[in-house]
Amino acid sequence: MLTEWIRSIRPLDEQAMREARRRQETLTKPPGSLGRLEELAVCLAGMTGRVRHPGLPHKVVIVMAADHGIAAEGVSAYPAEVTAQMMLSFARGTAAVNVLARTMGARVVTVDIGLKGSVEGCGVRGAKREARKVGPGTRNFLREPAMSRAEAIRAVETGISIVEEERTRGLDLLATGDMGIGNTTASSAITAVLCGRPPAEVTGSGTGLSHEQTMRKVHVVEQAIQLHRPDPSDPLGVLAKVGGFEIGGIAGVILGAAASRVPVLIDGFISGAAALIAVRLAPQARGYLIAAHRSPEPGHQALLDQLALDPILDLGLRLGEGTGAVLAMPIVEAAARLLDEMATFEEAGISNRAFDLAWNRSLRR
Amino acid sequence: MLTEWIRSIRPLDEQAMREARRRQETLTKPPGSLGRLEELAVCLAGMTGRVRHPGLPHKVVIVMAADHGIAAEGVSAYPAEVTAQMMLSFARGTAAVNVLARTMGARVVTVDIGLKGSVEGCGVRGAKREARKVGPGTRNFLREPAMSRAEAIRAVETGISIVEEERTRGLDLLATGDMGIGNTTASSAITAVLCGRPPAEVTGSGTGLSHEQTMRKVHVVEQAIQLHRPDPSDPLGVLAKVGGFEIGGIAGVILGAAASRVPVLIDGFISGAAALIAVRLAPQARGYLIAAHRSPEPGHQALLDQLALDPILDLGLRLGEGTGAVLAMPIVEAAARLLDEMATFEEAGISNRAFDLAWNRSLRR
Repeated sequence: MLTEWIRSIRPLDEQAMREARRRQETLTKPPGSLGRLEELAVCLAGMTGRVRHPGLPHKVVIVMAADHGIAAEGVSAYPAEVTAQMMLSFARGTAAVNVLARTMGARVVTVDIGLKGSVEGCGVRGAKREARKVGPGTRNFLREPAMSRAEAIRAVETGISIVEEERTRGLDLLATGDMGIGNTTASSAITAVLCGRPPAEVTGSGTGLSHEQTMRKVHVVEQAIQLHRPDPSDPLGVLAKVGGFEIGGIAGVILGAAASRVPVLIDGFISGAAALIAVRLAPQARGYLIAAHRSPEPGHQALLDQLALDPILDLGLRLGEGTGAVLAMPIVEAAARLLDEMATFEEAGISNRAFDLAWNRSLRR
Repeated sequence: MLTEWIRSIRPLDEQAMREARRRQETLTKPPGSLGRLEELAVCLAGMTGRVRHPGLPHKVVIVMAADHGIAAEGVSAYPAEVTAQMMLSFARGTAAVNVLARTMGARVVTVDIGLKGSVEGCGVRGAKREARKVGPGTRNFLREPAMSRAEAIRAVETGISIVEEERTRGLDLLATGDMGIGNTTASSAITAVLCGRPPAEVTGSGTGLSHEQTMRKVHVVEQAIQLHRPDPSDPLGVLAKVGGFEIGGIAGVILGAAASRVPVLIDGFISGAAALIAVRLAPQARGYLIAAHRSPEPGHQALLDQLALDPILDLGLRLGEGTGAVLAMPIVEAAARLLDEMATFEEAGISNRAFDLAWNRSLRR
């Protein structure tokens, strides 16, 4: 199934992008004066294959949650139970991502892709969530691989199938989100391997470790890489050895979005690690990504450099849950609506040529 | 009237800010993990005097439009008639600011504070606009002062009275906007004088001048400053000599907002010049400003430095109309709603103390 999905991802629609660029030039504004918004609208056209979008009404953030065996090594400022507790908050609608989604008009889909236990009343669609569990948390990758290769594939396929399901409910813009105590450690390991960087350069304080605790976390990542020697040219192998179920799930969400020509906003560090796995599996997927924000986690810039993405926002967010991705949604929607709804010079009765003549006149004076 | 308004601006409410900070610490997230959004929510509390805001439902962008005598010197890529033509676009709802305001749920108020002619069907509230005209465009400040001191005061007072009017319709968050062919030249002159910088450093290509045309614009600003020798310690004098009616109007909007404890998002270069005039008139007004975005116009950074403001967005926008300010509205609203709607650790049944104990346990292991 995974191979077929990867094969089905098409390059961006160059024709739609050309037409979008052409329309951009006719709108009543100085050329280029909408900066990044103009470029974003052109990218959206390439992704969806449509030049104009009358808004992006169906905005969805998919929050993948899982537990991490590596949390036993004291690599997080919070105990592992917080992953499940936050899942309850998502269900109650009181977490940061819920508030942001309400503000931006997005719907939240939470997926238990690998919590240790089961969470009562968890998820927007109740019991259905449970079926998505790939395993009861990963194993401690300081001792053994986090998951089997089969589980890694299942995590990615789960992400793809969630996107498939959401498409039936309407899906114009996706955002990725994560929850999992210990997942910055897994992401740092993935980043170190896939970007070929020393762990010390791409491992940060996560949810708020002291300097000493961060040094310990670096050491954990170094030891894990030494133990497993993950092959950077085998992204699924890297995911299996030092990854997490939610990271695989997010990679799948990205592949599913790209295959369905749905633009996908990538949140911060965890989502960035998942995006690099997805793009290494399917280089064409890169075109469907929009980097939402820059995280202060030191590894995030390495990922953005590898992905050649320039984030929309830079507000020092480091919460995860998809918060940065949801925050960037109105900006992406604004870019789409500007290209669709602004008057052209012709419609406004302002002739571009009249401008040129008037300008030349004023120069001759 | 102006002096009274200036005197009525109060400092930020420190008590509300302390309480907002305290609430911020109890929310279910790692401390500081919402970055700039946390700081923004605390600032909002200081501005309004309220710790919690259940959204900011009444969002308004005030677009001040005026003509500039200096446009006769060929300092813009567009002829002066475009100011009036764009006013018609605002009335039709087809300009960039209209599209963005619809996307963000804001209302647009356009003010003819000094167009050369009258514009049919102009403004959301029709004929009422006409009464706000301070004059039929400014005079060419390469030859004479742009306006009299009395006109400068009237422009500022007009801005204040527009805010007063909008408050009766509901006003939780303001954005400033401008329209006026030639107004980057006026803003460069104001910036050079108030920031004490050479015109060449704070004069840019505006709507898209060539290098040669920009050099000519720099020369115009230099000559005007030499001719009028504006006194940097007299902001109204600077406005009168080299300013614009809409720039005075925006300064008034800012003073009116500050006096009414309404947060105000400052758009780009033109609004920045107006903001510096406002803050030089009333230093307490500084606390009510939120810089929306960073403009590529070289003078904008000088203004931001003087105002000690760090913009929310950096997307290369240089259109004016308040576009950057409206684009930042959902981010400000998100900051307010996060502080209001997120669960505290106590509400979520997650004890901060339990966290600490679990963490200490994991360290001892």
